[in-house]
Amino acid sequence: MPLGVGVIGAGVVGGGVVELLLANRTIAHGKTGVDVRLAHVADLNTTALEAFDMTEVAVSNDARTLINDTSVQIVCELIGGIEPARTFILEALNAGKPVVTANKKLLAMHGEELCEAAVTNGVELRYEASTGGCIPIIKAIRESLAANRIEQAYGILNGTCNYILTRMTFEGSDFDSVLADAQANGFAETPPDLDINGDDTAHKCQVLASLAFSSKIALDDIHVEGITKITAQDVAYAREMGYLIKLLAIMRDDGDTIEARVHPTLVPEEHLLAAVRYEFNGVFVKSDFADATLHYGRGAGRKPTASAVVADVFDIARRAGAKAEPPFVYDRTRPLRPMGDLSMRYYLRLTTRDKPGVLGKVCTILGAHGVSIASCIQKEKHDADAAHVILMSWEANESAVQAAVQEIDALPFITEPTHLLRVL
Amino acid sequence: MPLGVGVIGAGVVGGGVVELLLANRTIAHGKTGVDVRLAHVADLNTTALEAFDMTEVAVSNDARTLINDTSVQIVCELIGGIEPARTFILEALNAGKPVVTANKKLLAMHGEELCEAAVTNGVELRYEASTGGCIPIIKAIRESLAANRIEQAYGILNGTCNYILTRMTFEGSDFDSVLADAQANGFAETPPDLDINGDDTAHKCQVLASLAFSSKIALDDIHVEGITKITAQDVAYAREMGYLIKLLAIMRDDGDTIEARVHPTLVPEEHLLAAVRYEFNGVFVKSDFADATLHYGRGAGRKPTASAVVADVFDIARRAGAKAEPPFVYDRTRPLRPMGDLSMRYYLRLTTRDKPGVLGKVCTILGAHGVSIASCIQKEKHDADAAHVILMSWEANESAVQAAVQEIDALPFITEPTHLLRVL
Repeated sequence: MPLGVGVIGAGVVGGGVVELLLANRTIAHGKTGVDVRLAHVADLNTTALEAFDMTEVAVSNDARTLINDTSVQIVCELIGGIEPARTFILEALNAGKPVVTANKKLLAMHGEELCEAAVTNGVELRYEASTGGCIPIIKAIRESLAANRIEQAYGILNGTCNYILTRMTFEGSDFDSVLADAQANGFAETPPDLDINGDDTAHKCQVLASLAFSSKIALDDIHVEGITKITAQDVAYAREMGYLIKLLAIMRDDGDTIEARVHPTLVPEEHLLAAVRYEFNGVFVKSDFADATLHYGRGAGRKPTASAVVADVFDIARRAGAKAEPPFVYDRTRPLRPMGDLSMRYYLRLTTRDKPGVLGKVCTILGAHGVSIASCIQKEKHDADAAHVILMSWEANESAVQAAVQEIDALPFITEPTHLLRVL
Repeated sequence: MPLGVGVIGAGVVGGGVVELLLANRTIAHGKTGVDVRLAHVADLNTTALEAFDMTEVAVSNDARTLINDTSVQIVCELIGGIEPARTFILEALNAGKPVVTANKKLLAMHGEELCEAAVTNGVELRYEASTGGCIPIIKAIRESLAANRIEQAYGILNGTCNYILTRMTFEGSDFDSVLADAQANGFAETPPDLDINGDDTAHKCQVLASLAFSSKIALDDIHVEGITKITAQDVAYAREMGYLIKLLAIMRDDGDTIEARVHPTLVPEEHLLAAVRYEFNGVFVKSDFADATLHYGRGAGRKPTASAVVADVFDIARRAGAKAEPPFVYDRTRPLRPMGDLSMRYYLRLTTRDKPGVLGKVCTILGAHGVSIASCIQKEKHDADAAHVILMSWEANESAVQAAVQEIDALPFITEPTHLLRVL
């Protein structure tokens, strides 16, 4: 008796799931021993389904009809956003039906509530597609590294940002022109804010950190910076020093506290993450026994996301008879370290009128805050009156660097706010 | 009631599993909800266990005692080799106990027999650690890509070879000196044959290809070449043309036939696999919905391998109550394409007395066999009397290239057999 799957949402991802379940049912049945059948698709607009042979599939405009359909044993929520997605998931879980979702925003904001509903009802809630698209990063952390203490994870989790930064790096183009081109070519949403301001990456960071560290993490406590302030010059200066600029989510666990932040980061060009280009995503995980692993693939897109959703469906089907696993375990909740307490290396781009003694004054201020300079590049004037000075610090404290930059920016010969970037 | 694990073999990997089960039992219990207890360790030599607190663990010198121990619910076979490993695994399966193994050679040679025993007894046989160490490549193929048609997989599956080739690449050293140094530093076995002749990679290739393509594959049908003939000059010439030399296992499925081969391969330097360095492994998988994914990590070593073994143990424990899954499904067995039928690009290093007209004659022979030349480098004499000519072909048929090389090597001015390498 095949297991029936219901798909709420017939958009890009939902359509991909429909296509995959119809196209590869036989091969997947052979490989897994489990026969999974597309039973029902619900959306307000189902015109996208006209491309498929839906003769054996129920189609409706009402998610509740789908949830209550007795031929549906597993529900996929693929409409995204907070409501009505949250209500639909809770209703399915409360009806005793396992749920698969790709909804990172909902998990990041209401993960605890959804987790509680899944546990209370003794059914599974799976979300591989929420983070890293088809990359099996959730499964790797949950299952492959189950017996490991995960020390850190960091990576590229937004394909739009990585696409823009990759083109800026290899073409020398500026942010606005690449973004416009990316939108024209379907590599960036319109409006692009959720991607380029770092929020989408922060949602995924919240999901990964909660899972990896078995800890409740408040989305608002994650430090988030996007890529909108990155200039073609920053990209070029970073390359000159042997780095590429990537938007990273960085998560660390020192045992007592957790670190979770999202910001543009200088990555050494020989690092594997530097080779993660264009719309691809990649996540590094470091754990006590497995050491470093990298997980790479397409972080978005119709077919790759569908692949992850359907993998979760098969995981649930393959586990029939076993005890349901909670989507998250929060048994080691610890506080997030404030950004100001962290230490790392910094890239500072100063814009200054080209006066003698500039570098001396700047370095004196940095020194007074305990920030030492590892290297320095003074560039020729970038316009008639101002020059760029690029400083790379040794490891320094975030608060100290921020205080120093505030003092530096008050100097009379500094003509623009100093641009601060962090180094991996 | 905790689940008891028995470990046969207290060597490098077995010792790592003991250490991991003792060190991270609590954290793993918290993360998975499953309490797994080290119950019994058996080996002829158990002195390595003196480093651990074994007060609550049975220790014996007899694997059969362990298999029959009623406190053991899951058996790990970590002694390697064919016998007695094969017998122990069969006995455990026949006793109705699931087995976890890291034994690629045994799987490659007797996988069908072990699979049959697992299926007959309705228990699981898991083998994540057999291929790629802690990299969850078996799980990715089996579970994350369950609904995908896997089109190809290729990668670096032997850390010793990759370590040697990486050092040859970055130090310009020759094979013998790097191998000796690698042995002295514990990065290569003594004798190193199984690694450097490609057999270990072929075992893993057999395992991955069987799983990925749901097909029976005879180990002997896999074309295998090792890295012993790679010279420092080959490495340098390849770099000059923008390639790194890596030992790859390459598997493809065109629907009707399967391709499985192991040989040194020129990888473009911008390819992610070129960034997989030293003892690390990396596997690319391409499938119809997920597209390209890369799986990277430590392919060997005490702790990473232990991580993979224990992940399998937890997978079995977490699946308690669910129907046992077969280790392999052979429902689409298809023939392997003979090596001679394949087409790809080739690197040819000719050693020739420096006479006028050499290149003309060589290219005439290649042309007669349908092999076109994409680029050519003629190097200065590498000794008093001979020069190297490096040719890079366009895509050509393997048999045709082999026939052409045979003719070329019979030319009077060719002083050494031509060295042929394949390009990714």
